[in-house]
Amino acid sequence: MSVFDSSYWNVTPTNKSRLVAIQQRIDNKTKPPGSLGRLEALASQLALIQCTENTTTEQINIHQPTIVVFAADHGIAKQGVSIAPQAVTRQMVLNFLHGGAAINCFCEANQVALKVVDAGILQPIDTKHKDYFVRRIQPSTADFSVYPAMSRADCELAIHYGAEIARSVIAEGANVLAFGEMGIGNTSSASALLSLALDQPVTALTGFGTGITPEQRELKCALLEQAIERVLMQHGESLTAEVMLREVGGFEIVQMVGAILATAAAGKTLVIDGFIVSVAALFAVLIAPDARDYMVFSHRSAESAHGNILEALNAEPLLELELRLGEGTGAALAMPLLRAAAHFYNHMATFDSANVVL
Amino acid sequence: MSVFDSSYWNVTPTNKSRLVAIQQRIDNKTKPPGSLGRLEALASQLALIQCTENTTTEQINIHQPTIVVFAADHGIAKQGVSIAPQAVTRQMVLNFLHGGAAINCFCEANQVALKVVDAGILQPIDTKHKDYFVRRIQPSTADFSVYPAMSRADCELAIHYGAEIARSVIAEGANVLAFGEMGIGNTSSASALLSLALDQPVTALTGFGTGITPEQRELKCALLEQAIERVLMQHGESLTAEVMLREVGGFEIVQMVGAILATAAAGKTLVIDGFIVSVAALFAVLIAPDARDYMVFSHRSAESAHGNILEALNAEPLLELELRLGEGTGAALAMPLLRAAAHFYNHMATFDSANVVL
Repeated sequence: MSVFDSSYWNVTPTNKSRLVAIQQRIDNKTKPPGSLGRLEALASQLALIQCTENTTTEQINIHQPTIVVFAADHGIAKQGVSIAPQAVTRQMVLNFLHGGAAINCFCEANQVALKVVDAGILQPIDTKHKDYFVRRIQPSTADFSVYPAMSRADCELAIHYGAEIARSVIAEGANVLAFGEMGIGNTSSASALLSLALDQPVTALTGFGTGITPEQRELKCALLEQAIERVLMQHGESLTAEVMLREVGGFEIVQMVGAILATAAAGKTLVIDGFIVSVAALFAVLIAPDARDYMVFSHRSAESAHGNILEALNAEPLLELELRLGEGTGAALAMPLLRAAAHFYNHMATFDSANVVL
Repeated sequence: MSVFDSSYWNVTPTNKSRLVAIQQRIDNKTKPPGSLGRLEALASQLALIQCTENTTTEQINIHQPTIVVFAADHGIAKQGVSIAPQAVTRQMVLNFLHGGAAINCFCEANQVALKVVDAGILQPIDTKHKDYFVRRIQPSTADFSVYPAMSRADCELAIHYGAEIARSVIAEGANVLAFGEMGIGNTSSASALLSLALDQPVTALTGFGTGITPEQRELKCALLEQAIERVLMQHGESLTAEVMLREVGGFEIVQMVGAILATAAAGKTLVIDGFIVSVAALFAVLIAPDARDYMVFSHRSAESAHGNILEALNAEPLLELELRLGEGTGAALAMPLLRAAAHFYNHMATFDSANVVL
């Protein structure tokens, strides 16, 4: 069975028939109905995912929330489509390991565990850091404006690696997982994947990444159009998720697809970060549509094409803070909202228990 | 000197000339410039408020963040402008004291201290709860659709009480304060205050509160128009903040105005909650414009007139979660964003320190 088949993952959809009972429990809390807005929908979703037995008393449990940052390099980066040289991917991985990056700060501030994966950066890092996984596929993808980004075998291996990492994090006790990414050039890969998946023109899905100039964006668009043309010429109508991922994907993106699918298959909650991670989420849903049930969308990125993905996934993110950094930063910032939703669902008094009579 | 004069409060504006140095510090962090979006502006504001000496090394410190919920009753509530009877104000105060309300859950989830004030609820509560302040002005305001809500002396006393409570919370060590409110009928008071302050028609500023019917809203609008007409007839052009507050205010709202002014005067950070608290914030700014410098706006309420206040105060709130509950819930939910902003400002590596070369 292929990892690109829904049946491989066997994701169980949540049981929506329980939504009425969940909403009743929420409506019995001492507040006007609906007055907690989006947090009520969030609590509902978490309860649907976690509470399978007794809707009246079972508690939502946010346990060891963990963010795994996947890092890899991209052949297309050599063409100058990013604000930073490729070497920065590795420098930033070192920064993650030393605790100095934005994602470290947000994880620390919000009590979220952080792990880092070398999914294929140019130069490996020699370290025994306990939160570092080395799952290198290749030292960088090929330049997908000219060649397939990776082989079929490497694409499948990346799915397996990502899934295995998610399973190991879950085995350690985490029941809420988020993924982040680092990879100079990866908005190019994300825009190309999105263009193929949504069948929309790539230029409309190409933004300024973390801050390139209009001239760089012109170049980026031209290269992406060339890549799309190449892929369509070669594959025509037979564009499967697997073909798209190996043609224009990145190792960190494909590993995240595997990690997302394994997390959903394990029935755990996924907190989806911004543009790049949402592309991985979209591919996970293309492969196994029921994975969508396990996804909480953390924030709306400043990268405008993020809106196209959110629309395709019928998702309304919790935060809109104009972030455009990646690393999983939006997911880390949203984690307290999950805790707050769980806390009111578990502990808030009912009208009866508090003697409040409307 | 009157508490309604700016000079009474002597609020020191923040020193905006330091913004360039603060932005430099942020831009040296290992991330593309501006990529943390709204969190960068938040960190800047916190640094402006707190770090007065050395912009390069001084840290932002979020110490003992505290929410004080002011509760009071409103004479106008007897007319049926709310979803709940007046008795619910007191029942909810008991709920706060027993830890069962939404604000208790969010404060607990986010490690925020909570205190409650009886600013004038119908029936006092006999308790020795350590976090309960009894600062009753009267047992409910008068029905302001017919009479002034309170006397000039009571209005001034309410300002003093609120200020005193804020000062005591600060004296205990809190340097970030938020205020919340409970008072059946208080969106009526808030809409009337706003109409007078912004000179906008009251019906355009009147919503559905925590969930009244369209018929109740009609009644609410008619009563509010009657109140506005009464006030304008009596005071004509001489509408000062003091006149508006005593004519159509509420004890919890006026105490919050005092609390906000005292917090700004003490140079501490204010996290402003939703519609009702924002009206108090607007009046604090009318009295002492520099108080605006100390205000972080936590969320955009589902009550649409909240947008009018935010516009008047040139404020863009951090969260938009369709909350319409009050109690300070939005402020409690935003607190982790302040901690995250402080953490990255204090601890995130610089390009130099992390050897990242863009």
